[in-house]
Amino acid sequence: MPTPERILEREGRTLPTTHPVVANSAMTVRAELLFVSGHGPFVDGRPAHTGKLGVDVTIEGGQEAADTVTMNLLGPLKAELGELSRISRFVKLLVFVNASSDFAQHHLVADGATNLLVKVFGDIGRPARSAVGVASLPLNFAVEIEAVVEVRD
Amino acid sequence: MPTPERILEREGRTLPTTHPVVANSAMTVRAELLFVSGHGPFVDGRPAHTGKLGVDVTIEGGQEAADTVTMNLLGPLKAELGELSRISRFVKLLVFVNASSDFAQHHLVADGATNLLVKVFGDIGRPARSAVGVASLPLNFAVEIEAVVEVRD
Amino acid sequence: MPTPERILEREGRTLPTTHPVVANSAMTVRAELLFVSGHGPFVDGRPAHTGKLGVDVTIEGGQEAADTVTMNLLGPLKAELGELSRISRFVKLLVFVNASSDFAQHHLVADGATNLLVKVFGDIGRPARSAVGVASLPLNFAVEIEAVVEVRD
Repeated sequence: MPTPERILEREGRTLPTTHPVVANSAMTVRAELLFVSGHGPFVDGRPAHTGKLGVDVTIEGGQEAADTVTMNLLGPLKAELGELSRISRFVKLLVFVNASSDFAQHHLVADGATNLLVKVFGDIGRPARSAVGVASLPLNFAVEIEAVVEVRD
Repeated sequence: MPTPERILEREGRTLPTTHPVVANSAMTVRAELLFVSGHGPFVDGRPAHTGKLGVDVTIEGGQEAADTVTMNLLGPLKAELGELSRISRFVKLLVFVNASSDFAQHHLVADGATNLLVKVFGDIGRPARSAVGVASLPLNFAVEIEAVVEVRD
Repeated sequence: MPTPERILEREGRTLPTTHPVVANSAMTVRAELLFVSGHGPFVDGRPAHTGKLGVDVTIEGGQEAADTVTMNLLGPLKAELGELSRISRFVKLLVFVNASSDFAQHHLVADGATNLLVKVFGDIGRPARSAVGVASLPLNFAVEIEAVVEVRD
């Protein structure tokens, strides 16, 4: 059977050899896994950072929301693991940005999450990452993030 | 190298020690995995529960849609596994709610899915969970859900 | 303890024995995993295929965007793995379609991705798949896709 590369060649398709990295996140990551629920930007038990990017939340405000959400992801991980250093890799972040239909800078908002992870965890804090603009979020959160984390035994 | 906790401390950041549980779902879950495609609320092969939360579907209607989708997730799992008791854990649900831009109760809609899972599977039916409001869904479904399930060998 | 099937029976609930396959994608897949970030339809380093389904992008245009994104998923996989034949299975695609609030054909757009994978990889190119309509995407991409891929050791 022909290789995938050969089939693409036959079809006249060329694999992109480079691809633009539009934001601070790694492209592919191997895994063994802890799944973390989507979290919102609660502070002291109350939703902070509500609203919509492209309407009433600035990119900086969105980045702060993403940073706050990331702290809220780390809280239950600390509770579950005892020591955050048991995390061997942040595998995947899916960043949901509460956004208008014409907003186009979701990747910059998501940097608020990965910048904090890289600051705290170094290279292992650089996950595969997606950022998308959703129509709405629970409690009108500006950002919701779910995560997949690899943990040492 | 300093621990992640030490780095956060240096930055003056405090990990949230508790976090509000806004809905019926666990926060973190370990895994070995079966992935299930996003399903919609088909009944007898036809899309039931169409429409948009915040426009023409009530929260109760959305919960019924989520319940119906969950049955449609269990169908292929039964077909694949033979016995549903081979499921050792529902690891993750991602609940897409077809919602207006000002809807804010997605977590209540998602309870329609996890309430059924907990009723049928007990504690192992309590997955990590995210609920978000999307602009639109295939065939105008009110709810679409994808799942990750851990299975016994 | 009663089986899940017995509990459903008691509740008067009947598992769907068949379910409509609305598009080219498998329902359940087992996994060991490589996660790939959400990618957009870049061509030669520039965003191609921008715009919104249901507004200014046709279904065919959306399928071409999904095909282009899929090439952009394969590029980093080739770079990471050396040979694409080390991929033992495409486990999961999550297809985000930049769509209006009344668009309802996201599954057809997503076929642009899975059709290419099946052409190049055969049956192992048929992943569990979800397709949803998001309010907006980075750089106004028409489509963004993230993937989970199983790799041979």
